[in-house]
Amino acid sequence: MYVILVYDIGEKRVAKMLKHCRKYLNWIQNSVFEGEITEAKLKEMLMGARAIMNEDQDSVILFKSRNERWLDKEIIGVERSSIDNFL
Amino acid sequence: MYVILVYDIGEKRVAKMLKHCRKYLNWIQNSVFEGEITEAKLKEMLMGARAIMNEDQDSVILFKSRNERWLDKEIIGVERSSIDNFL
Repeated sequence: MYVILVYDIGEKRVAKMLKHCRKYLNWIQNSVFEGEITEAKLKEMLMGARAIMNEDQDSVILFKSRNERWLDKEIIGVERSSIDNFL
Repeated sequence: MYVILVYDIGEKRVAKMLKHCRKYLNWIQNSVFEGEITEAKLKEMLMGARAIMNEDQDSVILFKSRNERWLDKEIIGVERSSIDNFL
């Protein structure tokens, strides 16, 4: 399945969350990730995310689509994923 | 059409961009919006966004779907849109 993940995480936890999410998805903007993922890997990722985040303060939103073709993506301005390759 | 908009905007411009996007879409997280919008309104919104942003530094990503039902949304942790109502 294709997912978009966006998070809003307290500063102290954000580096850890970034590293965690990049294991599973492509980083496309500051706090935004996308990619194809299996149901099993998604569960694993969310379990890890819950362990990192403070659920009273932080927020993770996940959009899931069975097919990437159902979504068009348009980027205006800087494309972060091109920067990502150098990190 | 249903859209998800995420931005990564320099601090100086972010308040203006937030105000602008909220005219057209629902604010669901720090820098994330979603909602139904017509093609005409979307064009208008993007024109306004381009006027606010610095295209060499800032980034706006737009995901478009013809139908909201093609996407499942899952929220983990704090739901910002409930806070939004009090602003």
